[in-house]
Amino acid sequence: MTAFVPKFPGWEARVRDSFARQPAMDLIGATLGALAPGAVDIELPFDRRITQQHGYVHGGVVAMVADSAAGYAGFSLVPESATVLTVEYKMNFLAPAEGPLLRARGRALKAGRSLIIVQVDVFNCRGEAASICATMLQTLMVMHGRADAPR
Amino acid sequence: MTAFVPKFPGWEARVRDSFARQPAMDLIGATLGALAPGAVDIELPFDRRITQQHGYVHGGVVAMVADSAAGYAGFSLVPESATVLTVEYKMNFLAPAEGPLLRARGRALKAGRSLIIVQVDVFNCRGEAASICATMLQTLMVMHGRADAPR
Amino acid sequence: MTAFVPKFPGWEARVRDSFARQPAMDLIGATLGALAPGAVDIELPFDRRITQQHGYVHGGVVAMVADSAAGYAGFSLVPESATVLTVEYKMNFLAPAEGPLLRARGRALKAGRSLIIVQVDVFNCRGEAASICATMLQTLMVMHGRADAPR
Amino acid sequence: MTAFVPKFPGWEARVRDSFARQPAMDLIGATLGALAPGAVDIELPFDRRITQQHGYVHGGVVAMVADSAAGYAGFSLVPESATVLTVEYKMNFLAPAEGPLLRARGRALKAGRSLIIVQVDVFNCRGEAASICATMLQTLMVMHGRADAPR
Repeated sequence: MTAFVPKFPGWEARVRDSFARQPAMDLIGATLGALAPGAVDIELPFDRRITQQHGYVHGGVVAMVADSAAGYAGFSLVPESATVLTVEYKMNFLAPAEGPLLRARGRALKAGRSLIIVQVDVFNCRGEAASICATMLQTLMVMHGRADAPR
Repeated sequence: MTAFVPKFPGWEARVRDSFARQPAMDLIGATLGALAPGAVDIELPFDRRITQQHGYVHGGVVAMVADSAAGYAGFSLVPESATVLTVEYKMNFLAPAEGPLLRARGRALKAGRSLIIVQVDVFNCRGEAASICATMLQTLMVMHGRADAPR
Repeated sequence: MTAFVPKFPGWEARVRDSFARQPAMDLIGATLGALAPGAVDIELPFDRRITQQHGYVHGGVVAMVADSAAGYAGFSLVPESATVLTVEYKMNFLAPAEGPLLRARGRALKAGRSLIIVQVDVFNCRGEAASICATMLQTLMVMHGRADAPR
Repeated sequence: MTAFVPKFPGWEARVRDSFARQPAMDLIGATLGALAPGAVDIELPFDRRITQQHGYVHGGVVAMVADSAAGYAGFSLVPESATVLTVEYKMNFLAPAEGPLLRARGRALKAGRSLIIVQVDVFNCRGEAASICATMLQTLMVMHGRADAPR
């Protein structure tokens, strides 16, 4: 694994502040977990409101937390004057997302000036035990000169 | 485009019934639109609760409706004794999802015995005008002998 | 479908010239077919040398022609002072690639200043009949100020 | 990482035999490297014949070796009476593929009865040094009751 160096000291506060401004993360009950440059965890407790018709967490909700883990892993690596945009991702569902806690673990593979590539694994966590339930590969575009602010 | 033939007369009622049993679709405010064998639309009105930090609909929410449109396009083509499971998808975000209405249009490309491949386009709709904001390519597995019931 | 406007008159000659400088296309026997701004076909006759162990055209070879069709669909839309780079793609294999002629049809979905998104379908063609055997969704990066020349 | 158990003693000979029957691998000069259950390396020396117009190895050729590494990682895990089929993959290109040796490293993430998911990294290798140039996420279908023989 490559070690990444953040572009300015306030990267962590900026990630936390941006995450707090996402109503959709609040709606599903997701919170930030461990944070390091290029490495962001997001946690999501099981809740019936976010399930699909078989009683598991909806795949789209799993994608939401994986997408956010990827996005913030990338966001943690850009300069203060830039933000990121999700260009695309691919997601494989490996097992039902049943919790009781889901943890999405985003890790940057490459951080270029224009594009950042991030890999994410999502785990079903029960106490110390964790088993993979989904994996994502995501491309982010770095938007230079754009603040991470509401439109 | 290929025309698809449903496997039993009750396919439409079955799609509607299954959709109604998804709390996550209700949570974000998504509803079923036009329905045909292998072709399903899902509609989502803009709402601040489903936005990300820049004020657009969260990419994960866009993925939820695209994923559901794909899943039900596939589900509309399987026998009464089978259900479907999302194996994986890839999603490209082409423009901000700002609504005021999002429409995800799922269309089966191929329906095999074991796998169904579906293409989905998501549009920002304003009256009669529609412009593409995302596209998805999804693989579904057909689960024979599995009812579409809660666990 | 959107109609695309090329950025300079010599776009077609530039696509043909660049294609001709790809040894790998020559190695597998691929040629350029129909050309329009944002729309490029590549053709590949069946040949035993490009098969896999079951006697069909190797999936990687199918990807090569789809990738090139996508790349040149994008390349046809950039200014004379720019080139393109494949960032990523996803490919679904829908049926065996058996020919006798494979045709990869690349169509741009969106052409931004920095990124171009292209959709490609690959067909088994026999006389007038064509059936889809693969589909690709690709992201290209526009490299401004870079000639399309050998390193 | 999960450890995988092969389904029968002859898995390795079967992988080597199947690889040897792929004319397309021979055409580009690819060979098998390290082999373990669920883990297959494929090596490809740089050669001008497999390059694109900028002088790097063609992305489609990189995909061919990554695809094969994934396929054989999956194939190493199926019963003697089964074979595998590539359903789809996504590939991200992270850096130019310049060699002098490319190594594609396929590792199974999950091996189910019907589907196998494999992750592949491709490296530019020079002596002991290796740097990642591409990554792939692939879905394989297990074809039970199908010999891995020419059509």
